[in-house]
Amino acid sequence: MSQTPIRRLDAREPEFLSVLDALLAFEASADDRIDAAVTEILRAVRATGDAAVIEYTKRFDRLDVASMAALELPKSALHAALDGLAVEQREALRVAADRVRVYHERQKADSWEYTEADGTRLGQKVTPLDRVGLYVPGGRASYPSSVLMNAIPAKVAGVGELIMVVPTPGGEQNPLVLAAAAITGVDRVFTIGGAQAVAALAYGTQTIPQVDKIVGPGNAFVAEAKRRVFGTVGIDMVAGPSEVLIISDGSGHADWVAMDLFAQAEHDELAQSILLCTDAGFIDAVHDAIDRLLPTMPRQETIAKSLANRGALIHVESLEQACAIANRIAPEHLELSMDNAEQWVDHIRHAGAIFVGHWAVEALGDYCAGPNHVLPTMRSARFSSPLGVYDFQKRTSIVHISEAGAQHLGKVASILAHGEGLQAHARSAEMRLKV
Amino acid sequence: MSQTPIRRLDAREPEFLSVLDALLAFEASADDRIDAAVTEILRAVRATGDAAVIEYTKRFDRLDVASMAALELPKSALHAALDGLAVEQREALRVAADRVRVYHERQKADSWEYTEADGTRLGQKVTPLDRVGLYVPGGRASYPSSVLMNAIPAKVAGVGELIMVVPTPGGEQNPLVLAAAAITGVDRVFTIGGAQAVAALAYGTQTIPQVDKIVGPGNAFVAEAKRRVFGTVGIDMVAGPSEVLIISDGSGHADWVAMDLFAQAEHDELAQSILLCTDAGFIDAVHDAIDRLLPTMPRQETIAKSLANRGALIHVESLEQACAIANRIAPEHLELSMDNAEQWVDHIRHAGAIFVGHWAVEALGDYCAGPNHVLPTMRSARFSSPLGVYDFQKRTSIVHISEAGAQHLGKVASILAHGEGLQAHARSAEMRLKV
Repeated sequence: MSQTPIRRLDAREPEFLSVLDALLAFEASADDRIDAAVTEILRAVRATGDAAVIEYTKRFDRLDVASMAALELPKSALHAALDGLAVEQREALRVAADRVRVYHERQKADSWEYTEADGTRLGQKVTPLDRVGLYVPGGRASYPSSVLMNAIPAKVAGVGELIMVVPTPGGEQNPLVLAAAAITGVDRVFTIGGAQAVAALAYGTQTIPQVDKIVGPGNAFVAEAKRRVFGTVGIDMVAGPSEVLIISDGSGHADWVAMDLFAQAEHDELAQSILLCTDAGFIDAVHDAIDRLLPTMPRQETIAKSLANRGALIHVESLEQACAIANRIAPEHLELSMDNAEQWVDHIRHAGAIFVGHWAVEALGDYCAGPNHVLPTMRSARFSSPLGVYDFQKRTSIVHISEAGAQHLGKVASILAHGEGLQAHARSAEMRLKV
Repeated sequence: MSQTPIRRLDAREPEFLSVLDALLAFEASADDRIDAAVTEILRAVRATGDAAVIEYTKRFDRLDVASMAALELPKSALHAALDGLAVEQREALRVAADRVRVYHERQKADSWEYTEADGTRLGQKVTPLDRVGLYVPGGRASYPSSVLMNAIPAKVAGVGELIMVVPTPGGEQNPLVLAAAAITGVDRVFTIGGAQAVAALAYGTQTIPQVDKIVGPGNAFVAEAKRRVFGTVGIDMVAGPSEVLIISDGSGHADWVAMDLFAQAEHDELAQSILLCTDAGFIDAVHDAIDRLLPTMPRQETIAKSLANRGALIHVESLEQACAIANRIAPEHLELSMDNAEQWVDHIRHAGAIFVGHWAVEALGDYCAGPNHVLPTMRSARFSSPLGVYDFQKRTSIVHISEAGAQHLGKVASILAHGEGLQAHARSAEMRLKV
């Protein structure tokens, strides 16, 4: 009799879909205190630049410096961190970075152009962003893998300058994060964080140049600050809690499935781990494995809360039904934990990443398989994509019109412009007509 | 002596850059009344669906109907509108639609995959969005060209269902808009608008199915509603006032340049038309042409206000300086109005669309050249792109790991996961190791 609290559902129950929707629902609660603090910080950094950043860094990170220069890490510090790592850690970071780079190089878009019979040439020019800011959280959630996954696509795109900000509360630095910055070729690093770091990147200060886009995860203050500066600069998606959905046909090992659920649940209490399985006996085996393995996990408290609050083991009628449910969930991570997983890939329309087969476990994708681990959460895989090189390139339409082309197109434009009551548009086209 | 009020600036003046930045600055003013109204409308439509949409449509559009069915236009109505057009209008719409389609077909991204030596296969699957909502404004700004520019990329991407909403205040329909919907193959059309239409698309109602993304322009209520439902659904950029920047070397016709400035300015008083020119005499000629042509324009009042409040004729030292200023402005539309325009294209890093040479006038791009007329405004060309097929496709990472691959990658992932203190991640990888 399995003990660990986690929902057991049956997809054949009439109420199933509404129970599922309630389980998936997540809305970041509005917090007036955060709103007010972020408003004030953005205003202050915009008004006084460096001085405000220094003041907030003193207050929030207990770092008292005389000038911004003291908050910039020289490249030598990044390389010293890399050199100081254990050999196997340094090697693992290098392998991961190389694999992520090779995968992302496939995403690079090229400019194109075509010429029409009358000499008119139309195309699209693809250029990298000039300057990008990379936010890296401090403290417990300061992950070197996040530096790799954000910095590498930017560098592959050809971004001119990549500026990393990472708070170091009380002066405590994370050598793995700095080593990852060295390996990926981050151009400048400032030890600042919070809404003040986002503001400094978005508006620029005397020392920190204004960027064109800000990417990377952060706490609620950072997320709110990014939301506010959007428009002034580009931002990546504001991420919700991380999610995994595992579809199983009962083949493979129950222990593997249990541990894969734990790997999601250990992130935080709001993370979501769901199993869909056609085999009731296998679900029992997974539940037993959860009971057995949970006490061995250092982060068991977080895992238990996440499984109890947001997890589920769901019995489904068929793999077809499982895929239909997966498309409704549009999960960030989807594991197809089956012997014949390949044939089900095309049944999935919405997912951030699909891990195909028993060997393709999410943890490999999180670190070193190659694809990005920044993925759409909260059902946004219905309309958005993994972070990629395309997020650091932009397009410009190129319109060369030949004299002959202007004669043909000018008449069409004139008719349509008059139809819209835009006479200056019409005359601007008509002036090019030679009749 | 030129009369029409428009700023005359000289880029060699010491204060020029700060004057320019002030001229470019635009912040949509926050309006508590709009915020409150949108909050209430979103809440009501989410709670009661069709009933709320019907009620708001009665209140705001003076359309009193008994059921949502009365607010849906059958396909026959769209085709009747098309058949009812003057032949030359119908033909112009068809030519424009065909050219826009041909251009956008080049943007379609394909899935890809590669196989490593140990059998691991990595790739990216590209899929169209399932269902998209297209907002089309009613009244004065109800433009058939906007239907073409939003619907065609969606259809080229392969979007399953395209649902258009267009308010018809007092029941007044725009036949050109309906004809454009017929030509582009819009699947369903509802005569609703405002925040209630955005809410209906974002949440779904008894009659209107929930979409995955909402695109298209709208007034302040629509823009605010889109901002609020972002996350539940995807949205396109919230556009600012339209802008043109013309770079001239003094070649070509002053009248053409004046009319191209008018074509931008006639959109609304906030539209921005700026000329950069190396030839002071030509600037005078353009100003004279403005004086002479302005009284002939039906929308002269709007044009005059736009030019006076947000326009500028700027004398620059060189074309190099003009390009540097263009990159600072990152204009939505850039015309290179020069005899040797081609050689300057590569000097431009940031622009939504570049119109190269005297024959390439923006008005052709607005209607029928082929590229999209939905372009990044307010300096966002630094980090974003024209609307395109890529906005209606999304990517899913595909991760097949072979047994041999899991052995190699599992060790790397385990080292990195332990380094981040994520032991369940590490064990999930280690369980696949055969040692």
